[in-house]
Amino acid sequence: MTAALAIRPALATDRQAVWTIIGPIVAAGETYALPRDWSAAQALAYWFLDAHEVFVAEEEGKALGTFYLQANQQGGGAHVANAGFATAAHASGRGVARAMGHFALAHAKARGFRAMQFNFVVSTNEAAVHLWASLGFETLCRLPEAFDHPAAGLVDALVMFRRL
Amino acid sequence: MTAALAIRPALATDRQAVWTIIGPIVAAGETYALPRDWSAAQALAYWFLDAHEVFVAEEEGKALGTFYLQANQQGGGAHVANAGFATAAHASGRGVARAMGHFALAHAKARGFRAMQFNFVVSTNEAAVHLWASLGFETLCRLPEAFDHPAAGLVDALVMFRRL
Repeated sequence: MTAALAIRPALATDRQAVWTIIGPIVAAGETYALPRDWSAAQALAYWFLDAHEVFVAEEEGKALGTFYLQANQQGGGAHVANAGFATAAHASGRGVARAMGHFALAHAKARGFRAMQFNFVVSTNEAAVHLWASLGFETLCRLPEAFDHPAAGLVDALVMFRRL
Repeated sequence: MTAALAIRPALATDRQAVWTIIGPIVAAGETYALPRDWSAAQALAYWFLDAHEVFVAEEEGKALGTFYLQANQQGGGAHVANAGFATAAHASGRGVARAMGHFALAHAKARGFRAMQFNFVVSTNEAAVHLWASLGFETLCRLPEAFDHPAAGLVDALVMFRRL
């Protein structure tokens, strides 16, 4: 499927499609540390922050995934990238996140970033943990009980890192 | 000296005093990952973010230090606090930061936070690393070469954590 997947910068006209993808993820509250009751406007304001470069992954004109790329810190920390990824539930397991991950790593390197860091990968999000490990990220540490999972309660979050 | 030190919420009228403290720190770029060329307005907008509860530590009516307290994450991560501290250069070595640290830990606990996490303690900032260790913080991991120090070049930053 990923042969037909196109990844391109998000446009203002993609906002509704992005909300369709990230809305259920925000509401579920299982993988992102964001308020579960956020409105579309609140979630989209976060996803499309000025500092975020936003992309969509689409197949035959339909967005199946989206991610943002940003500097993880400002000033003396601006050479390390950070990113957040979301895949439409109905497209799960088809390699969309992996394709976006590959793209994000290459694009971050092209922009001059020297590494990519994820600050808060929820440990129970095994698909994400395994994906990032398979793309070369190492777990630098576990943040003890840093995430209150709606079903599992307090679980660790991981700091994951990869040089570019 | 700390017996005469009073710690209280910052007021709008403290903004100039806070800038006097944080301005040289931002400009030096050795301990905070913030743009070194930030104006007073930019630095104060950051320090006084809506989500930040800001305090000043004063002695005889003169602010010697300031810190902010916030949730380190939103949503499922909102039970872990984060804070940033700054001491006036002329008050260095007199226990101001330690007093603010004690206050911040107690206040965070009173607010219901379960832990405090520092995401980015520059490893060459030995005074801070030692202070936080002495206040019970453990280093969860080092972020490799995550900070570009103006004099030392690329150095690690530390993720430090303490339960409350």
